[in-house]
Amino acid sequence: MSELRLHPDRLFPADTTTRDIARRLYQEIKNLPIVSPHGHTDPQWFADNEPFGNASELLIKPDHYVFRMLYSQGISLASLGIKSRDGSKVEQDPRKIWRTFADNYFLFRGTPSRMWLDYVFKEVFAMEKALTPDTADLYFDTITDSLQQPEFLPRALFEKANIETIATTESPLDDLRHHKKIRESGWKGNVITAFRPDPVVDPEFEGFVENVQRLGEISGEDTSTWSGYLAALRNRRAYFAEHGATSTDHGHATAATADLSPSECEALYAKAIAGECTAQEAELFRAQILTEMAGMSIEDGLVMQIHPGCFRNHNAEVYRQFGRDKGADIPVQTEYVRALKPLLDKYGNDTRLSIILFTLDETVYSRELAPLAGHYPTLKLGPAWWFHDSPEGMRRFREQMTETGGFYNSVGFNDDTRAFLSIPARHDVARRMDCGFLARLVAEHRIHEDEAQALAVDLTYNLVKQAYKL
Amino acid sequence: MSELRLHPDRLFPADTTTRDIARRLYQEIKNLPIVSPHGHTDPQWFADNEPFGNASELLIKPDHYVFRMLYSQGISLASLGIKSRDGSKVEQDPRKIWRTFADNYFLFRGTPSRMWLDYVFKEVFAMEKALTPDTADLYFDTITDSLQQPEFLPRALFEKANIETIATTESPLDDLRHHKKIRESGWKGNVITAFRPDPVVDPEFEGFVENVQRLGEISGEDTSTWSGYLAALRNRRAYFAEHGATSTDHGHATAATADLSPSECEALYAKAIAGECTAQEAELFRAQILTEMAGMSIEDGLVMQIHPGCFRNHNAEVYRQFGRDKGADIPVQTEYVRALKPLLDKYGNDTRLSIILFTLDETVYSRELAPLAGHYPTLKLGPAWWFHDSPEGMRRFREQMTETGGFYNSVGFNDDTRAFLSIPARHDVARRMDCGFLARLVAEHRIHEDEAQALAVDLTYNLVKQAYKL
Amino acid sequence: MSELRLHPDRLFPADTTTRDIARRLYQEIKNLPIVSPHGHTDPQWFADNEPFGNASELLIKPDHYVFRMLYSQGISLASLGIKSRDGSKVEQDPRKIWRTFADNYFLFRGTPSRMWLDYVFKEVFAMEKALTPDTADLYFDTITDSLQQPEFLPRALFEKANIETIATTESPLDDLRHHKKIRESGWKGNVITAFRPDPVVDPEFEGFVENVQRLGEISGEDTSTWSGYLAALRNRRAYFAEHGATSTDHGHATAATADLSPSECEALYAKAIAGECTAQEAELFRAQILTEMAGMSIEDGLVMQIHPGCFRNHNAEVYRQFGRDKGADIPVQTEYVRALKPLLDKYGNDTRLSIILFTLDETVYSRELAPLAGHYPTLKLGPAWWFHDSPEGMRRFREQMTETGGFYNSVGFNDDTRAFLSIPARHDVARRMDCGFLARLVAEHRIHEDEAQALAVDLTYNLVKQAYKL
Repeated sequence: MSELRLHPDRLFPADTTTRDIARRLYQEIKNLPIVSPHGHTDPQWFADNEPFGNASELLIKPDHYVFRMLYSQGISLASLGIKSRDGSKVEQDPRKIWRTFADNYFLFRGTPSRMWLDYVFKEVFAMEKALTPDTADLYFDTITDSLQQPEFLPRALFEKANIETIATTESPLDDLRHHKKIRESGWKGNVITAFRPDPVVDPEFEGFVENVQRLGEISGEDTSTWSGYLAALRNRRAYFAEHGATSTDHGHATAATADLSPSECEALYAKAIAGECTAQEAELFRAQILTEMAGMSIEDGLVMQIHPGCFRNHNAEVYRQFGRDKGADIPVQTEYVRALKPLLDKYGNDTRLSIILFTLDETVYSRELAPLAGHYPTLKLGPAWWFHDSPEGMRRFREQMTETGGFYNSVGFNDDTRAFLSIPARHDVARRMDCGFLARLVAEHRIHEDEAQALAVDLTYNLVKQAYKL
Repeated sequence: MSELRLHPDRLFPADTTTRDIARRLYQEIKNLPIVSPHGHTDPQWFADNEPFGNASELLIKPDHYVFRMLYSQGISLASLGIKSRDGSKVEQDPRKIWRTFADNYFLFRGTPSRMWLDYVFKEVFAMEKALTPDTADLYFDTITDSLQQPEFLPRALFEKANIETIATTESPLDDLRHHKKIRESGWKGNVITAFRPDPVVDPEFEGFVENVQRLGEISGEDTSTWSGYLAALRNRRAYFAEHGATSTDHGHATAATADLSPSECEALYAKAIAGECTAQEAELFRAQILTEMAGMSIEDGLVMQIHPGCFRNHNAEVYRQFGRDKGADIPVQTEYVRALKPLLDKYGNDTRLSIILFTLDETVYSRELAPLAGHYPTLKLGPAWWFHDSPEGMRRFREQMTETGGFYNSVGFNDDTRAFLSIPARHDVARRMDCGFLARLVAEHRIHEDEAQALAVDLTYNLVKQAYKL
Repeated sequence: MSELRLHPDRLFPADTTTRDIARRLYQEIKNLPIVSPHGHTDPQWFADNEPFGNASELLIKPDHYVFRMLYSQGISLASLGIKSRDGSKVEQDPRKIWRTFADNYFLFRGTPSRMWLDYVFKEVFAMEKALTPDTADLYFDTITDSLQQPEFLPRALFEKANIETIATTESPLDDLRHHKKIRESGWKGNVITAFRPDPVVDPEFEGFVENVQRLGEISGEDTSTWSGYLAALRNRRAYFAEHGATSTDHGHATAATADLSPSECEALYAKAIAGECTAQEAELFRAQILTEMAGMSIEDGLVMQIHPGCFRNHNAEVYRQFGRDKGADIPVQTEYVRALKPLLDKYGNDTRLSIILFTLDETVYSRELAPLAGHYPTLKLGPAWWFHDSPEGMRRFREQMTETGGFYNSVGFNDDTRAFLSIPARHDVARRMDCGFLARLVAEHRIHEDEAQALAVDLTYNLVKQAYKL
C-alpha cells in the first residue's frame, strides 16, 4: 500500500465485458476540456495569480469535506487550525496540522475525498508513496515547496487542468473587481461569475436590511419600494451578465415558490425591509422571489439554478465558535411537486426559461424530479450534488433519473467546489462513472455502443454548454 | 447503428455466469401466455376489429410516455397532433408528426419507451433499420400500410401476442357494450372488464353529482340515500362481475381509508351529492369508500387494487389546452401505514379479502409495503408501476420488496397500458428482468436454480392468475 | 434441490475477480469471535442451562420473522401454536406445527430467514436434505432429539458459536438475577445486560405509573418528584453497569429530543405519573428523557442506542388475541435532523458521549444519518436493522452510508435477535456482505486490498468492541 497508485481502470465496473466498453468510452472523452458552470473558487486567485500557501492552507482548511470527517472522530477544529470567530486559540503550525491529517487519513477510506486527494497528490504533486503518518512530512514539504513554483500558480494550474470555462459565485453586492481584473489582464482563462442573490433576497440572511439598502445604492434604484427593488435586482443581473454570468443560483431551505398579487408583494416586501418578517413570511418572500427571478430570466436569458434542502449550520456550538461552512450543514427532506407549482403555473411552459433543479434528497430523483423534468420544457436536472457528488451518488442519480427523465434533460457535471485542485479529480470521477453506467447499458444491450459514445461526449461536454449557454 | 437489433441477451446481467443462468430461466418462460390483469386498452378495438389508423395515430398520439419526453425538450403538443380542447389548431399531417418523432428519437436513449418501441418495430413490423431521420418515411409507410392488412387487425394482433386474458378498465356508468359484443361475436379472445368507480365515488371528479344520479338510474337504486348509493354500487359490481370482472381499481390521490359510523357516512354523503364537500371532506369520503369497497369485495370476491400517489394534471396550461393524460401527472410522497389502518382494523385479517397495493413512491417499498404485505393476509404487492415500469424500476422493486415481502406476496406483472402493441414488449421486459434478478440470487447461492425456475414460472404466470382469480 | 447445501461462496458477488477478492477477505475474518452487543436472548437460558424444547418451540414460535410470513399467506397464528391472550385454543402438537412450516417453507425463498434457517439446519443439526414436506418429520425428530443432548445445551451452543460477548436487554425493573446466577456459576461465557428503560420512561407504556412506583421502591428514591425520578434512573443505570451493561437502548416511536427547563420537566413529569399525559405530552416526555439519558451517559459512560421509527402492534386484532411482537410492527417515515437537534445542541460536541443511531427508514441513510454521523463526534451509525438485516439491506446500508459517513463512524454488526441459534448465521451473512462490498471497492480500485483486509477486521470485530466499550 505504500505506493500511491491511480489505477487506469478505477471506478469502472469489475465485469470484464462491461469494463472493456467503459474503457473505450472513457478513452474518447477523458481529454475533453473541463467546463465548470457552478462552483465556489475565489476569482481573486486568478486575478492576482499569487502562489497558494502551504499544504494545510490549501488542502485542509478550506475543505469542509476533510475536516467534517476528522471532527466526527473527535479531532477538534482548533487542532486543524480552523480560524475561530471568538478569538479562541487554534493551531498555527501548518506542519502539525498536516501530521494530524496524515495520522487520520485512513478515515477517508471509501469516501470521495480520498479519491480526489490521491488524484491531487499524484497528478498535481507527483507523489509516489501513499499518505501515511510516515510520509506526512515528505508530503507537507513537497506540496508546500511546489506551490512556490511558477507552474503551480493559479493560472498555470487552471491551464494545466484544461479548464475551458469556470464560473464562480458572487453576491449582487459584489463589484466583480476580480473578474474585471482577469479580463483586463489579457489572460485568456475564461472565469465568469454567477448571480447568487441570497444576501439581498432572503429576509433571514444576516444583514438583509442593510444589504438591500446597499443594493439600492449600488444600482441607483429606490429599494424602499417593491418595484424599485425589482428594478435594482434587474440592474445587478444585467451587470453580472456583462461580466460573463449566464446563470443565477438559489440555495433556499426549501423549493417553495409563490405567485402573489402585486399588492401582496408590496406588503410583504415592506415587512421584509423593516426586518419584521415572521419565519413563515420570510419563507413566502423567498418563494415569491423565485418566481420573480424566473420572470427576469425570461427577460435576460440567465439560466436559473435551484438547489434547496439543506439545514445550514446545524451545530449551534460549532457555528458560534467557527462560523458558516464548517461541515455542519445537514440535508433534510425536500418536496418539489407542490412547491414548484406556483412558478410552473406561471412560467413552466415558456421555452425561453431554463431552470436546473438540484437536490440533497435522493428520494425525489425517481418520484419527483425525473417526472417533472421529463415533462416541463423549462426544467432540467442538475447532477448529483454535494454529499452525492460521489461514485455511488452518481450511480444512483443515473439509475433513478434516466428512465423517466432521459439523458437529455440532464446537464452534465458540476463540481460545486472551492477546492480548486480537486476540480479535475471530480470531473474525472464523473466521467468514469458516466462511462461505467453507459457501459452497463451497452453490455445489457439497452443502447448501442455508438450511441453510448455520443452520449459520453454529450454528458461530459455538450449538455453542460447547452444548458448553461456557454 | 443503422441496423435494428433486438439482442437475445438484452437486459440480462453482463456477468457471464449470471447471464447463463438468466438465459436458462428465460428459455422456459418466454413463451408462456400473457396474462394482463390491469390495463387500459379500448374494448371497442376487439369488439369492432377495425384496422388501426396510421403510424402516428397508433404509436404517438395515445402514448403519453412518448409525447411527455418530446414536450420536455420543447416540442409542442400541437406539433405532435395532440387534439386540443380549446379548438386551437394542431398538426394534422401524420407523416409530418412521425418525422418530428423520428428526428427526436435519440431523446429516448436509456428509457423503456425506446425498448418497447424497438420491440414493436422489429417484432410486429419487421423493420430492419433503426428509426432515424433518414428512415422516418420508410417507417411511416411500412407501419401505416401494414395496419391495413388482416394480420394487423386488433384480434389478429391479440392472438399473435399470445394473450390469454386481458382486462380493460371501465366506469360503473359504462354499459359494457363492447364486452358484450366481443362475447356474442364468438371470438375466443378473453377480454374482461375491471370496475373503476372514480367517477361515482370521488366528490372531486368532474361531474360527480350527475354521475351519481346516473348511477341510480342505471342500477335502479335510490342514490339519494347512503344505503341506496351502496346498493347501487353493489348492483354495478355484480353487473361487472357478470361481464368477467374479477377486480376493482382505485386511483385516489392518497391511500387514506376511514371507518366512519353509519350516521357520519350519511351526513358526509349528503354533502357529497349536494356538491358541497370541502377538499378535506372529499378526501374523507374517498377514504370511507375504500373501506366500503373492501367490505363489498368480501361479499362478491372482487380483488381490490389500490394505486394512490399521483398529482394529476400538474401542468395547468397543458390541462386547459389539451385535457387529461397528457404526461403531466407527477408522483408525490405517499404514506400507507397510517392511511390503511382503518380499513385493516376492520377487514385486514379476513382471508376472503385480497387487496393489491401499488405505489409511485419507491421509498415505501422496503419501509412500508413489504412489511405490510409480509404480515397481513389480505395484502399483496402490485408490480413496479408506471414511471417504475422499467428495467431499473423492476430491479429496485425486487431488491427492496423480496427480503421482507417474499416473492409469494407479489402478483406478477401488470402492463397498465393503452399502448396495445407495446404489451408483449412490456411483458418481455418484465420476464427478462425477473430472470436476471433470480439469476443473481442463484449465482450468489441464495436460492437453487430449480427454485429459481419454479419462481420464474410463478412470477410470470401462476401468481397473476391466482392473485386476480383468473 | 433435495440436498441441503451451504455454498462456500454464498452471498459473494458473481463476478469472478470480485469474488476472488471477497473470498480472500472472508478467509481472514470468518473465524473471528462473535461480539453481539445488542440482542434479545433470554439470560435464563445461560443461567439455568436447561435443554431447549422441541423443534417448533425453538425455531418457530419465538421467531416473528417466520410466523409473520406464514400469517401473510393465510396460515393462522393458532395453527402455529402461538399462545393466545384470550384463552382461545391454539395448536398444541409441535410436530403438526412443524409440518405446517415445512409445507410452506418455499415461501421463504429469497428471504434472510431462509438463509439463517438453512445455516442452522446444516451447521447446528447437520441435516443433509433440504426441508420439504417429505423431510418434515426427519427434521422434527432430528432437531428435537438433538436438543436433549449435552452439546445442545445453551452454554454448549454459546461456546460452539464462538461468542465472545453477548448483551441481553432488560428493563430497569429487572433484578438481573439470571445475570448474577451466570456470574456466580463460574461459567466463563460473557453475558452482559443492557439498560432498556421504556417501561419507566414512556408514559404510554402499559403500566407506566405503577412501573415508576416500583422503580422508586427498587432504587430507594422518591419518584414522586422529577429529581427523585432522575436519581432513581441513575441508580438503576449504575446497577446495570455493575452487572456488565455498557449501553442503554431506546426504542421510541420517533427520534424526537427536547431540552426543557427544570420547571417544565417537573410539570410534565407530574402529569406523566398522574397518568394524565396527552399523546403530545407523552411524546415530549420521551423526547426530554432522551436528553436526560444523554446527560447521564456523559456521567456514567454508558453508550446510548437510539432506534426509532416503528409503528408497534399495527394489527389491532392480532394484538388483542396474541399480544406484542407478533410480526405486526411496521416501520414509518422517521426524521432525525430536526428531531435530534435539542439533544445535539446540548451535548452533541461532548466527546465523552457516544450515541448509536439506528433506523428502519432507509431514506435517511444518505440524506440524514451519514451527514450527521460524518460531522458530530457523538454520533455513530448502527448497522442495517431488523427488516434491513438482510443481504440487500446491508448492501444498501454500506452503499448509502460509507461515502459521507465513512466506515469508521459505523459500529459493526448487531444481530438484535431472540432466535439464539440464528446468531452465528446472521453474523456470517454480515461478514460475507461486508467482504463482498469491500471486494467491489477493491475490484474498482477505490481502496487497496490490504486496506480492505484491515477494514474487514475492523467492521467485524474492532469497531463493535470500541463502539460498545467491550
